[in-house]
Amino acid sequence: MSEFDKANATLTILSRDAKALENWINANQSSSSVPSLPIIQCTANPVAINKQQVSVLLADPDLAVHIIPECNNLQWCQSTWAGNAPLLALAKTNYKLTGVKGIFGKLMREYVFAHLLYFSRNIPTFQGNQHQRPPIWCGSERFPLTGKTLGILGAGDIAKSLIPVAQSFDMKLVGLTRSGAQQAGYERIYSVDELELFASQCDAVVNLMPDTPSTRGIIDQAFFRALPENALLINAGRGSAIVESDLLWALDCGRLKAAVLDVFNVEPLPSDHAFWHHPNIMITAHTAAESSPEDVASIFCTNAKRFLNNEPLMYQFDFAKGY
Amino acid sequence: MSEFDKANATLTILSRDAKALENWINANQSSSSVPSLPIIQCTANPVAINKQQVSVLLADPDLAVHIIPECNNLQWCQSTWAGNAPLLALAKTNYKLTGVKGIFGKLMREYVFAHLLYFSRNIPTFQGNQHQRPPIWCGSERFPLTGKTLGILGAGDIAKSLIPVAQSFDMKLVGLTRSGAQQAGYERIYSVDELELFASQCDAVVNLMPDTPSTRGIIDQAFFRALPENALLINAGRGSAIVESDLLWALDCGRLKAAVLDVFNVEPLPSDHAFWHHPNIMITAHTAAESSPEDVASIFCTNAKRFLNNEPLMYQFDFAKGY
Repeated sequence: MSEFDKANATLTILSRDAKALENWINANQSSSSVPSLPIIQCTANPVAINKQQVSVLLADPDLAVHIIPECNNLQWCQSTWAGNAPLLALAKTNYKLTGVKGIFGKLMREYVFAHLLYFSRNIPTFQGNQHQRPPIWCGSERFPLTGKTLGILGAGDIAKSLIPVAQSFDMKLVGLTRSGAQQAGYERIYSVDELELFASQCDAVVNLMPDTPSTRGIIDQAFFRALPENALLINAGRGSAIVESDLLWALDCGRLKAAVLDVFNVEPLPSDHAFWHHPNIMITAHTAAESSPEDVASIFCTNAKRFLNNEPLMYQFDFAKGY
Repeated sequence: MSEFDKANATLTILSRDAKALENWINANQSSSSVPSLPIIQCTANPVAINKQQVSVLLADPDLAVHIIPECNNLQWCQSTWAGNAPLLALAKTNYKLTGVKGIFGKLMREYVFAHLLYFSRNIPTFQGNQHQRPPIWCGSERFPLTGKTLGILGAGDIAKSLIPVAQSFDMKLVGLTRSGAQQAGYERIYSVDELELFASQCDAVVNLMPDTPSTRGIIDQAFFRALPENALLINAGRGSAIVESDLLWALDCGRLKAAVLDVFNVEPLPSDHAFWHHPNIMITAHTAAESSPEDVASIFCTNAKRFLNNEPLMYQFDFAKGY
């Protein structure tokens, strides 16, 4: 007996990339010999959805949150995101929720090292010199990555992609995870209750943690005080990890050299937010590891075959654990 | 019989970093048990040198060129540079000339990938968005390194340091050398007479070639025409490799997306040079792999021990070959 009602299953797409996803899925399913899920609804507008017809849903979680409580026939939702806090916070949990993994590493490694090297090679100073009138021909201080220690908050799946790059620059790696279990490629993995000891090792810190109750606000004044002076912070996890006023304090008193921020408590980041105008903050628009519709469609189609073949779905969330 | 007159050998330092070099050498020699070379002259000014007293010379080659023709007792000159065109062009060749190698790779890999990733992650667009009033929250096109091909003109010693980094980003590498002999880590090494075939493979090109008669002007209009559209050029070899007017043509007609230039025909680059003001040229001040006085002193001391022990010197130049 299947846990799914596959015979009547259809696909509803609710995403800002609905049309592109539909095209990629149709292209993929037409080239495959397995049965497929017919697409019956495809929109970026939650209000346009007939909720009773939703059995399989491919959706942006911040749109899906508006319809899922009333989707009584929902069997499986494939999210287009890695993190799924909006859906994990709902009371409704009687369906399978799967996320997107495995495609972010190759994007994240370029994001992280682009910004580490931007400061290592002091690109801002050379740019400033070039824009002076007359321009200034002058060296500027380097801060080589060689021999430095990169700390990763949330040393999980995505972080693995950073390991060979860090090694190729002769950097040391330390990590922090819930369990503190050791992993290959790291000098040491610290557990959450060793947060400040972890921080004290880091010339640069990358946060990759999802938004969970235990990660909220852990990058606070105590964390910044524990960092070596002139450390760099890159936040590509979730905005909720950072206590915003403490970050501004750390930058202004010189504990932190610069912060590169991709994620925020409120997105888009409001125009009048102090982060926009701080000289030592670089802002990107939650784009560090933005999945392409092609990547998401590929994962959906792999999971759809599993769904139709009664196989376990990949990247399934545990509502109790929250990740 | 020694080829050197070690008994009377003394050290003259002629360098913009003379004082720092002296300090590092004294610190190194005092901690060593081998005999040392006494420092008898130490200056940044060629005119201040007593040329007849010069037996061993540690010098910036663009300063040394003013005294070496009259240094009749010169046995060995340790240059502070990797390239030594000024000294190789002199008629006088009856002394040993050694350069600086092995320390540039770890600097060059950060320089090259800092700039490749700056464009890959479109940092200029995000910076522009942040500086608008009101600021703009918006994604921007990515140009991932993954799967792209990096071409290295002058696939020698320094280039080796780029191989593991390129591999960690899943880039392909092609190289060009005089001989075209294959090397590990490259998809293919091309010879000089396959220059355009090499260029046609490259999403980005890094020039690391020294200044020799055969490398002058080889990055010309034909080279740019052979590149794929929207390629990147990084010149960290010598300025003479590039035909300047052809570079401006390639940028202005869109064959080249951007050029990152560290070296020029005339240095410092004159204030009124068109390169300074071109929107798609990034300029650094011959600092891509600038050796530190500590690095140079360390190499000098290693060679000084070899000199005093009648052992072959490291990194010796061949006047006939010109490198």
